[in-house]
Amino acid sequence: MNLPAETLPAAVAVTDAAATVLPLRYRLIRQATEQLCAPLSAEDCAVQSMPDASPVKWHLAHTSWFFETFILEQAIAGYAHFNPAFRVLFNSYYKTVGEQYARPQRGLLVRPSLDEVMRYRHHTDRLMLRLFSEHEITPALAAVIELGLNHEQQHQELILTDLKHLFSFNPLRPVYAAGAEASNNEPPPLRWFQFEEGLRRIGHDGSGFSFDNEGPRHRVFLESFALASRLVTNGEYLEFIADGGYERPELWLSDGWNAVQQYAWRAPLYWQQRDHQWLNFTLSGLRELNPHEPVCHVSFYEADAYARWKGARLPTEAEWEVVASELPVTGNFVESNRFHPAVLQPAATAETPAQMFGDVWEWMQSAYSPYPGFHPPAGALGEYNGKFMCNQMVLRGGSCVTPESHIRATYRNFFPPQARWQFSGIRLARDAK
Amino acid sequence: MNLPAETLPAAVAVTDAAATVLPLRYRLIRQATEQLCAPLSAEDCAVQSMPDASPVKWHLAHTSWFFETFILEQAIAGYAHFNPAFRVLFNSYYKTVGEQYARPQRGLLVRPSLDEVMRYRHHTDRLMLRLFSEHEITPALAAVIELGLNHEQQHQELILTDLKHLFSFNPLRPVYAAGAEASNNEPPPLRWFQFEEGLRRIGHDGSGFSFDNEGPRHRVFLESFALASRLVTNGEYLEFIADGGYERPELWLSDGWNAVQQYAWRAPLYWQQRDHQWLNFTLSGLRELNPHEPVCHVSFYEADAYARWKGARLPTEAEWEVVASELPVTGNFVESNRFHPAVLQPAATAETPAQMFGDVWEWMQSAYSPYPGFHPPAGALGEYNGKFMCNQMVLRGGSCVTPESHIRATYRNFFPPQARWQFSGIRLARDAK
Amino acid sequence: MNLPAETLPAAVAVTDAAATVLPLRYRLIRQATEQLCAPLSAEDCAVQSMPDASPVKWHLAHTSWFFETFILEQAIAGYAHFNPAFRVLFNSYYKTVGEQYARPQRGLLVRPSLDEVMRYRHHTDRLMLRLFSEHEITPALAAVIELGLNHEQQHQELILTDLKHLFSFNPLRPVYAAGAEASNNEPPPLRWFQFEEGLRRIGHDGSGFSFDNEGPRHRVFLESFALASRLVTNGEYLEFIADGGYERPELWLSDGWNAVQQYAWRAPLYWQQRDHQWLNFTLSGLRELNPHEPVCHVSFYEADAYARWKGARLPTEAEWEVVASELPVTGNFVESNRFHPAVLQPAATAETPAQMFGDVWEWMQSAYSPYPGFHPPAGALGEYNGKFMCNQMVLRGGSCVTPESHIRATYRNFFPPQARWQFSGIRLARDAK
Amino acid sequence: MNLPAETLPAAVAVTDAAATVLPLRYRLIRQATEQLCAPLSAEDCAVQSMPDASPVKWHLAHTSWFFETFILEQAIAGYAHFNPAFRVLFNSYYKTVGEQYARPQRGLLVRPSLDEVMRYRHHTDRLMLRLFSEHEITPALAAVIELGLNHEQQHQELILTDLKHLFSFNPLRPVYAAGAEASNNEPPPLRWFQFEEGLRRIGHDGSGFSFDNEGPRHRVFLESFALASRLVTNGEYLEFIADGGYERPELWLSDGWNAVQQYAWRAPLYWQQRDHQWLNFTLSGLRELNPHEPVCHVSFYEADAYARWKGARLPTEAEWEVVASELPVTGNFVESNRFHPAVLQPAATAETPAQMFGDVWEWMQSAYSPYPGFHPPAGALGEYNGKFMCNQMVLRGGSCVTPESHIRATYRNFFPPQARWQFSGIRLARDAK
Repeated sequence: MNLPAETLPAAVAVTDAAATVLPLRYRLIRQATEQLCAPLSAEDCAVQSMPDASPVKWHLAHTSWFFETFILEQAIAGYAHFNPAFRVLFNSYYKTVGEQYARPQRGLLVRPSLDEVMRYRHHTDRLMLRLFSEHEITPALAAVIELGLNHEQQHQELILTDLKHLFSFNPLRPVYAAGAEASNNEPPPLRWFQFEEGLRRIGHDGSGFSFDNEGPRHRVFLESFALASRLVTNGEYLEFIADGGYERPELWLSDGWNAVQQYAWRAPLYWQQRDHQWLNFTLSGLRELNPHEPVCHVSFYEADAYARWKGARLPTEAEWEVVASELPVTGNFVESNRFHPAVLQPAATAETPAQMFGDVWEWMQSAYSPYPGFHPPAGALGEYNGKFMCNQMVLRGGSCVTPESHIRATYRNFFPPQARWQFSGIRLARDAK
Repeated sequence: MNLPAETLPAAVAVTDAAATVLPLRYRLIRQATEQLCAPLSAEDCAVQSMPDASPVKWHLAHTSWFFETFILEQAIAGYAHFNPAFRVLFNSYYKTVGEQYARPQRGLLVRPSLDEVMRYRHHTDRLMLRLFSEHEITPALAAVIELGLNHEQQHQELILTDLKHLFSFNPLRPVYAAGAEASNNEPPPLRWFQFEEGLRRIGHDGSGFSFDNEGPRHRVFLESFALASRLVTNGEYLEFIADGGYERPELWLSDGWNAVQQYAWRAPLYWQQRDHQWLNFTLSGLRELNPHEPVCHVSFYEADAYARWKGARLPTEAEWEVVASELPVTGNFVESNRFHPAVLQPAATAETPAQMFGDVWEWMQSAYSPYPGFHPPAGALGEYNGKFMCNQMVLRGGSCVTPESHIRATYRNFFPPQARWQFSGIRLARDAK
Repeated sequence: MNLPAETLPAAVAVTDAAATVLPLRYRLIRQATEQLCAPLSAEDCAVQSMPDASPVKWHLAHTSWFFETFILEQAIAGYAHFNPAFRVLFNSYYKTVGEQYARPQRGLLVRPSLDEVMRYRHHTDRLMLRLFSEHEITPALAAVIELGLNHEQQHQELILTDLKHLFSFNPLRPVYAAGAEASNNEPPPLRWFQFEEGLRRIGHDGSGFSFDNEGPRHRVFLESFALASRLVTNGEYLEFIADGGYERPELWLSDGWNAVQQYAWRAPLYWQQRDHQWLNFTLSGLRELNPHEPVCHVSFYEADAYARWKGARLPTEAEWEVVASELPVTGNFVESNRFHPAVLQPAATAETPAQMFGDVWEWMQSAYSPYPGFHPPAGALGEYNGKFMCNQMVLRGGSCVTPESHIRATYRNFFPPQARWQFSGIRLARDAK
Repeated sequence: MNLPAETLPAAVAVTDAAATVLPLRYRLIRQATEQLCAPLSAEDCAVQSMPDASPVKWHLAHTSWFFETFILEQAIAGYAHFNPAFRVLFNSYYKTVGEQYARPQRGLLVRPSLDEVMRYRHHTDRLMLRLFSEHEITPALAAVIELGLNHEQQHQELILTDLKHLFSFNPLRPVYAAGAEASNNEPPPLRWFQFEEGLRRIGHDGSGFSFDNEGPRHRVFLESFALASRLVTNGEYLEFIADGGYERPELWLSDGWNAVQQYAWRAPLYWQQRDHQWLNFTLSGLRELNPHEPVCHVSFYEADAYARWKGARLPTEAEWEVVASELPVTGNFVESNRFHPAVLQPAATAETPAQMFGDVWEWMQSAYSPYPGFHPPAGALGEYNGKFMCNQMVLRGGSCVTPESHIRATYRNFFPPQARWQFSGIRLARDAK
């Protein structure tokens, strides 16, 4: 599998010029989704492992539904649906569009078959490409298409995240891809970078694509703070466990401690202990736990408890963003074909914090809230981000299953504090001395 | 699809002679299972619709597991498993055999693939057939093989029952098989057959195959009673609904009324009302409700409430059996390829009660309890029936998805009183005047 | 506390003569209820420990509601309610009477106060006694009054049962009553009494009071069987625990084993282990476990598993009744003021089974089902017993908190198989050799 | 009932001088708690209406436990507990102190009796007053005592909040206190006060008592904004309902809409509709709904949906605090003996926003998070506030059941977004034009 990310043009802003690169981006991103699914059987794609996850087949169909509903239906007079029933079946949560098939039952949809869903994708692609060649792509239309492509990339990540969760229940330990050889390097010691207090600006400035929740750009006052030079590793997290981390309520938020009891957490998701040895289930199968890799698949509660145990805290999203916005967007993304966090190179943290992008989503101390002046757009697309601004925590930086062209410093991901099936890890911060 | 039931030899008793027909029965019954699955895709076979149901693929594997575990492992010295992991994966509930994969997660097993499961079946079949030709089949071994064949037939029925439940969630209304044309005949009026009081014998006498729970044969004293000449129809059940049947607590057992509230029951499972018309989801798709067919997919609670509303009651299993044991085992079974209850012919009830076998399982008033002197066999096979003798009600007579050669007058099926996804219906009884 | 049971006339049959003893019975039984509550504070009486239990105050009010609803409302023209709101508040489950206050919320009724409830009782008593002196008590009316008195006695038992459950949550270990000194006697060894097969009659014959579910009297055929000479003791049950009784699935019904896991059962309810010593919470406080007492507060599942471990089984209710009907109704009842099962005297089992009445309710192998020809009475009182005839098991013989005059050989008590807060224990049976 | 708030000295800062007023504050605040409970019976005080609420008796004991555990145990060498079992029974959530009795079972503690709890309170008071007169009250000790007094005031509010919830289940509609006559005044029209953007300071500056979560004082940048002149009224909220507010998903946060479905919300808690008239259950019984009163007992979700429907939003806590810090702390508090929000006087909003303190807690748009530089104190008292900083929203300003001396502009209350049993209401904000 070789994902064609290098040749993918950057996400387009809503300008007249934008439309010229859109068809190319459309083709490449849609192809990338199918390439990710190439190793999978129809059975692999049919099943749902929990209400929060979706079958791969559903992701494949829903991303086509997005283009059909928000582009083709709008742009083509008298548009005839590929299958009218899909309008409900593959609507995720857009209540303004109409009814949705119940989310926890997505895995019951043995029909349409995977073949039929692929026909649906290809039919949609043909109509979209005809649209590009035969219709005027207004800036407004281009903006929605660009949103659809970023939406497709989000589901590329979810396909791998949900698939890993599904495979983890299987005693046969399926392998999605060979991945990379594990490194025996030791990462550089954790250091602290200091940042001065001051009035800063965060949020997206509107040049190029962004999701609505990344703006408006606005001022925030930051006290001086320090940010860790790299991510927390499995080895460091093992010390937390060895020190009774999961048995000491004073280290946890109250809801976090309740979660530890309720779910009987004793280690990150996908870790298992056999004969005193820790193993780690990955998209390349069950492997010996590598202490040098970044710790992954922890909840916000675990990230927070680890930080407290370490005498530190998690960063706020404003702190993280002012640092990240000075750094290039490089790292271990889905295009590396690892599908797993990588061991950091020894010299990586000499001048700036490393691993800010890629590897694992970093849990922030910040609850997911609207920025000052935020207003979601009118209509169904206003349901994309704003309505989830409660009971969720912000994550930043993308992961090893995020497409590289999808992430940026202002990007705000969000999940409930107990979620562990995302590729989520820990970067420490602290108040400046 | 043509199921080869006509040529299937009868179930064998444990005699020296038995072994000669076993290989033929083995081949035919195993083939019948696969013929039932022929119209299904790998996706259709992978998914589980609820904890009480299993994926078709799991049924296909588990029935092989039964022969592997209880025959091949025992009979072949140094037996090498097809895949040692299957020993846990496809153990249903035999705690004496060892661990089981969690039942509600059977639908998560995207691996082994359906292809692999079919290889497992064919591998098992080759070994079984070699066993027949190369080993002495002792009466003890023949008895377990015969049990395995009857077990396979039970799962043939469950494959269709569970598949119907799965398909019912699908707005595309999948069709399993064309089925038969609906009949417009009106069934004969319901009459009562009277039976005198007296000391009777019920239970299997041990000649030919039976499950352990059918014996020992023993004496019961029956008061005089009357049994309805036929099953209750959809049209008769509609009168119960129209008379407020689901809204009148005085018609229901206390737990039944709670179930009506909890599950919001308003009609049998698979019925739906659209524009004042009743539709019925069947294995041949969504059809107009036929008032002349036997009512099906009702719980014990609904059967009991209907009987009370009608001034009657359900039969006890002893009453049913003393009548049924005088009748030939004929009816609408899976071999008719209808997969749905059939309308009764007008002249059918002239001399004896009709529809005692086939069409729908008939809910009895009797809780599922051990017969006097019942002792399950030692070892794992003792877990087959005895450990479920609590919180379940008896059903009698087989259904339209039961193999004809599988049923007999002494056969005791059992399900919890709230179960509705089996092909279960209603025959009335009453005390004699 | 001295309960006046000795002077209580026997329950009356519905004859013209009956009415003459009714007023005396009424006064004594209603007084007995209040005497049972004399040691309790208003707080003790207000609280509900689980949905299946009720506050003592609710029992006190509901038993008055019964007389008000089924006697005073019917017999007195233009009857004015003590408080019209009580008609709903203290209706237990009589849907024919009207709405009920939600059962799990009975403990939220801080008003009416206990004082007010006692005024309600005394008001009802005054009207009932006036009815006795001023109205003709027809046989029909007498029958309902007698039912009300037996109903009141059932709630006397429930008051103590529910109170024990409530007190058991309290780390201060409240004492209801001093009870009796524990005996150090060793009970006689367990022996077996043999009974011949044959056609027997069971069920109440209608002479004197009985509940509707005890009849009609009817014939049953019994195989020969043996019944244990006495109840199973704590010491014997400890051997079951020591032999891994709670860890061996092969000893349990399937639903029983699920209950062991779900509720983490490791011993009977109210047992606790401290420093390798077993303690037993009783209505006389926390005491060292006495190995010679009958085991108590076990579920049907535990009784059944114990019997299987012992190579025996539980009796059917027909077996139990044919033996009990030959024995006098004597034993350790509530009038002994022990409120706990008693150690059996050494010579007690010389000629007949002992402890058949009193001490603990004995779990039967029989599901609670209607007798042949059973029809509940019309109207609200028909809801008393019949509608519970599903998912429950029969218990026989009464307990140490049952009023002596309340029990008889035909009496059928019933509870779900997982219930443990009743004073329920174990008597073994087995097939005859 | 006359609460002696006028004469209550202000909360003390930790200075040497502080100790001189502490004994007086101690006596008055402890008395106020008991005065609040004077109208209640032992039964009223014993019962718990839901896991989130506690019985009044538990509040009475727990507040004494606080002084016993954090003052008497620490200050008195060889301190002998009133009852050692209380150390566990009345520990709320301080895991550092040791075990806690399970919160959802607090209502099962019929013992100790209310009388015994009052003895516990008076015993504690005697020892505390002796401590004041015989020991040196160090600043550190004074700080913890002051914390204990503020803690006691929080439980004064909870006593009324939890009692109202308990009484609401009672069809007899208990009256706690007569309260005040309802006003027929119409409040002034809602206006908007504008505030300029700029760098502001919020948080407590450490002079005088505050909870740890109110600090440190720090800078925040605020965009210009507008704040509503008064609270939203019942009449205004009725318009939201009439406009389909509870039926339009586009008005709600995703979790809010789920809550509407799950809990079947159709109006604020304690509202009920009878014969097309709205009634409101209050601590003075069931009353006709007064459209002029501030709306109360709404969740964050409802407050947020109302604001969205109105084209506005909720304030952030920083916006609210910079306005409130310029205003005097006056309003409708518990000392008014209304126990219900009051109708605003017509002239009240002439110059500044009104009702900022008292009447109802105002839901903020802000998730409850630590301020920059926040560190909870070491030891058990560090569990007071910090460990709840997740999944909760901030409320500001106090309510009609808050003691006047307890509230201030920097005070941060917090509850989960679905909580409705607190006296919580709505103030609107919006971005400046």
